Amino acid sequence: MPATTQTPDTPQQRVARLRAAMREAGVDAVVVPTSDPHLSEYVPPRWQGREWLSGFKGSAGIVVVTDTFAGLWADSRYWSQAEAELAGSGIVLMRLGEDDVPPHPKWLAEHFASLGAPSEPEAAQGAASHTASPRARRVAVDAHVLSLNAERALTLALGAVNVVAVPPAGSVADAAATPTPNRSATDDAPTIVLDTTHDFFDAIWPGRAGLPAQPVYAHAAPYAGEPRAAKLAHIRAGMAKHKADVHLISTLDDLAWAFNLRGSDVDYNPVFLGHALIDQDHVTLFVADGTIDDALRAELASDGIAVGDYFALPQALAALPAGATLLIDPARVTVGGVADVPAAVHRVEAINPSTLLKSRKTDDDLAHVRATMANDGAALCEFFAWFDANQGKTPMTELTVDERLTAARARRPGFVGLSFPTIAGFNANGAMPHYRATPEAHSTIEGDGLLLIDSGGQYVGGTTDITRVVAVGTPTAAQKQDFTRVLKGMIALSQAIFPRGTPAPALDALARAPIWAGGADYGHGTGHGVGYFLNVHEGPQVISYRSPGNPNMAMEPGMITSNEPGIYRDGQWGVRIENLVANRPWQETALGEFLNFETLTLCPIDVRCIDLALMRPDEIAWLDAYHDKVREAIVPLVEPEVAAWVTSRTQPLAG
Amino acid sequence: MPATTQTPDTPQQRVARLRAAMREAGVDAVVVPTSDPHLSEYVPPRWQGREWLSGFKGSAGIVVVTDTFAGLWADSRYWSQAEAELAGSGIVLMRLGEDDVPPHPKWLAEHFASLGAPSEPEAAQGAASHTASPRARRVAVDAHVLSLNAERALTLALGAVNVVAVPPAGSVADAAATPTPNRSATDDAPTIVLDTTHDFFDAIWPGRAGLPAQPVYAHAAPYAGEPRAAKLAHIRAGMAKHKADVHLISTLDDLAWAFNLRGSDVDYNPVFLGHALIDQDHVTLFVADGTIDDALRAELASDGIAVGDYFALPQALAALPAGATLLIDPARVTVGGVADVPAAVHRVEAINPSTLLKSRKTDDDLAHVRATMANDGAALCEFFAWFDANQGKTPMTELTVDERLTAARARRPGFVGLSFPTIAGFNANGAMPHYRATPEAHSTIEGDGLLLIDSGGQYVGGTTDITRVVAVGTPTAAQKQDFTRVLKGMIALSQAIFPRGTPAPALDALARAPIWAGGADYGHGTGHGVGYFLNVHEGPQVISYRSPGNPNMAMEPGMITSNEPGIYRDGQWGVRIENLVANRPWQETALGEFLNFETLTLCPIDVRCIDLALMRPDEIAWLDAYHDKVREAIVPLVEPEVAAWVTSRTQPLAG
Repeated sequence: MPATTQTPDTPQQRVARLRAAMREAGVDAVVVPTSDPHLSEYVPPRWQGREWLSGFKGSAGIVVVTDTFAGLWADSRYWSQAEAELAGSGIVLMRLGEDDVPPHPKWLAEHFASLGAPSEPEAAQGAASHTASPRARRVAVDAHVLSLNAERALTLALGAVNVVAVPPAGSVADAAATPTPNRSATDDAPTIVLDTTHDFFDAIWPGRAGLPAQPVYAHAAPYAGEPRAAKLAHIRAGMAKHKADVHLISTLDDLAWAFNLRGSDVDYNPVFLGHALIDQDHVTLFVADGTIDDALRAELASDGIAVGDYFALPQALAALPAGATLLIDPARVTVGGVADVPAAVHRVEAINPSTLLKSRKTDDDLAHVRATMANDGAALCEFFAWFDANQGKTPMTELTVDERLTAARARRPGFVGLSFPTIAGFNANGAMPHYRATPEAHSTIEGDGLLLIDSGGQYVGGTTDITRVVAVGTPTAAQKQDFTRVLKGMIALSQAIFPRGTPAPALDALARAPIWAGGADYGHGTGHGVGYFLNVHEGPQVISYRSPGNPNMAMEPGMITSNEPGIYRDGQWGVRIENLVANRPWQETALGEFLNFETLTLCPIDVRCIDLALMRPDEIAWLDAYHDKVREAIVPLVEPEVAAWVTSRTQPLAG
Repeated sequence: MPATTQTPDTPQQRVARLRAAMREAGVDAVVVPTSDPHLSEYVPPRWQGREWLSGFKGSAGIVVVTDTFAGLWADSRYWSQAEAELAGSGIVLMRLGEDDVPPHPKWLAEHFASLGAPSEPEAAQGAASHTASPRARRVAVDAHVLSLNAERALTLALGAVNVVAVPPAGSVADAAATPTPNRSATDDAPTIVLDTTHDFFDAIWPGRAGLPAQPVYAHAAPYAGEPRAAKLAHIRAGMAKHKADVHLISTLDDLAWAFNLRGSDVDYNPVFLGHALIDQDHVTLFVADGTIDDALRAELASDGIAVGDYFALPQALAALPAGATLLIDPARVTVGGVADVPAAVHRVEAINPSTLLKSRKTDDDLAHVRATMANDGAALCEFFAWFDANQGKTPMTELTVDERLTAARARRPGFVGLSFPTIAGFNANGAMPHYRATPEAHSTIEGDGLLLIDSGGQYVGGTTDITRVVAVGTPTAAQKQDFTRVLKGMIALSQAIFPRGTPAPALDALARAPIWAGGADYGHGTGHGVGYFLNVHEGPQVISYRSPGNPNMAMEPGMITSNEPGIYRDGQWGVRIENLVANRPWQETALGEFLNFETLTLCPIDVRCIDLALMRPDEIAWLDAYHDKVREAIVPLVEPEVAAWVTSRTQPLAG
């Protein structure tokens, strides 16, 4: 197929083309989430249909289009950006979180209820490919970007009226012939059919990108950790626990970990597109043609791993024998991805064994991470030494921070790239937790206040993620109080000792209590799992009391988690202090096995921002010990003038 | 029907009679939970069928009987008791929590799977009243003691194989004619039918108790709080939120609260058996005949409340008009209780409005609680003063504690009864959180160690629940360390400040952190809601990270919760320190509305058990301020020698 050049059409024209396709297909509404067939956090261009359609560039948001309405559901982080980017598009910004804005499934249910049942001719009108029930309203979402869990949640939420799930492509069942409504019909509400059979973008998006297909490479010794054979044995042991014969992996960080491979198909995450099918005797890795060279293919073959074509997965699934038991993770495979599994194959649902295994870094992994943290800290100190020496002398903006800090990281051994886009926010910009300075909109750093920098790198020996807030000029007493409360929260969690297996969300209050005590709080979680030269956001553990605790969130030795409380004053300033911490065995006592945290991140915390009157002696002792460790690790890695800066910034506070 | 005297038959004979009734009904297994039609914590004798059948007297446990097996599922708290009480019964103790003991629904599913499908003649054999599917296994649970939520959980758990729910009595549908399996059938697994139509105990339990029917009385001014009309208006506002026309209440504390009535049908809880049906114009309270006298009936009538017979509820539900919307709480009504609701009535499920309202004590309620706490504390101090004066002089046992403490409470104004059975455990007995001394088995209090006393009273002005641990002779250093860590946990939670609406489970770690830091933990929750002259365990809030947080657990002003961390050393000693605390408004800041805790309980904490080296200055300051408050409240209420004891036990620790 010849390449088509991008047409300069407008969101209105694009929505109009989508509506035409909807009418053709007999669909009443289309939901466009921000998702891809691998349920990635950063979506490759091919699946950026939501952005293409609406013009909204934010990293999260859902577009819903009906024949009379188009809306973008986005949370408060994105409202000002979305307002600007949607201007003139005819697409309504639905401010998710405001009292009068229902979530999109509820909005759809109410919308259709207000319309009443379609008249029979109307419903029959364009239904070319489906025998619709005369009273059904059809809501389309592409099965290939919808996890099993997301499909169930959507079905349930649309269930405010009645719901019928349509089997995805590949199934022979007919929706209208086998309705399984989850509620009995009432007189007024039309049935809603969830139709997962359409990917409208192929037809309406000229120049839609193809699959990314960058070269796949081995994560080589000594950094790769356990050999492939050992990892596969662990995965097979996990399958055996569920009495599964075969297991499908579709999430990219699971694949990268399991096979000691890396790639660059997705921004910031060193992963490659693929799926894997594993049984007791065979392993097939399905990747785009040409992404694995002959040498690597031979290496994989010697480990018993066959390479198949990315598009050959459906046939492989369709060929699974009757009576086999397939292990799938309903949060980590899509409806479309498993559509071709024969009905005679039993399905067992559980978290991917690799997701649990991957979260528990080995002692070797952690040794590499410690060395990486020293290098990353050295890069940060180089930047901060320059920053302090040049404050008030060299003009600098928030963009300067990203440029110089990224350059300092890039000079460090093992550096591969950033682990996420740098957040550098001065004063009011620091109050936006997901702020990103752009050439069009950014602040100059001058005068007095606080500069918040949240950044991280991908290195062959680990992934980093660190936030520091530093003084610019002279911070105010109120800024120091906020800084100190956040620091106390960060220290409280750093010092925690807890039973092995404690659900991570249960620890959240430890970081918040000192912040609550000052009449403050923050709207984000306190911690997320972090990969090993992998995704900077990785499951399963989350330190957030808003997360439903589940057994997979049990804290286990080797897990790496961020510790990042904050306080945000709208329009004024923001404080967040973030270290990465690893779960380590502490003691086994008569009452159980206990873990504590080893702080991995190595970079001074700006004591010029501390209100010492708020600090307890044990907190000061923690900070002094931390600064000793930082100084010892960083000084040998940097030039003398940076070493002098490190030494001056790590002097003890206690007598 | 003439009364039948209790027959001295054995558990074997009783199980045999149950099996005969099962065969007659075509039932393959019976599940007997510990529950009643009002889902009470303490079950009236009529519904103590599990105890009658098995001989096991514990407060929790589930019996399952098949034609070849009878087992009691009980958790570790009850293992030694159950072993003794089941001896010779032929009933197997299933140690719930051990790795190889599946929960009873899973056990049933596996049991039937191992048997395979019944042969057609076998299945047809005794099925007198049901047209069973040829391959179905029928599991019976009485719909009248099964909440909607419990039925769903059981259906799901049995769903390891296939499940069909039978409509309860009153429905015309036939189970075999309208199967709705939640999974497609596989080749091997038999269908399991959940049959909720049988209460076998009427037939097999000669002398089964009738309904309790003690007199109902008004909770009178000034203690009753808001008048009935105001409470009903609040409930109707709650119904309106869910667009409900009518609302059914079956839980006894909700009824008692809503109507300012109390009773004595249930041990320790001042409640009466009943249901209520509330619509916008009418209120009917369904209670046993003769329990409400004419004067009270007239008083209720003047508040617009009609009194109906307890047994007239099904007819009232059956008469609900088509199209009406009924609000029910799936955790607080039974399957049998709503069986007669016509299909044409819409159901809306949500927590009872009264459950939320009741949890938020008014300022007037709290004023009465404060006075009650002073009186309860005075009774405790009378006991402790006597106890300290007589240690080593007067022989005393754990039973003495209950006798003398209960007598001291009974002398206090407004005392009605105990709020739960007193727990008094010396040394090793204190390590059992639910220990209860009996005339047959109890310890003498002598020598050295720790005595744990957990007790509480019902007063017309409030419900109390307090745990203290006191020194007997000289406690060891290890005992003092445990005591001090528990105290630090209790103080940490007492000092917490938190955003209004924080889910109660999120606060749990604050009490645990100082205990975890010593390599210890405890297996129970940290706090439960407490009623106002009502149940000592009341929802919705629970401070336990193991509880699934839900929006109903949001901390709101006026809620009363226990704060009771502990440490238990098997076979050695136990420490638990418990105060009740109330949520109070603290401050409204730029970042939100914050609450703190007011400690309500007033009784000295035994400083002789404290290891001062473990205490921080702010913790000592908290304890000294608490003891000042205790002394000021109690001294005026007690005789001089008790006042002297209180004064000596509340001296400040800080210089």
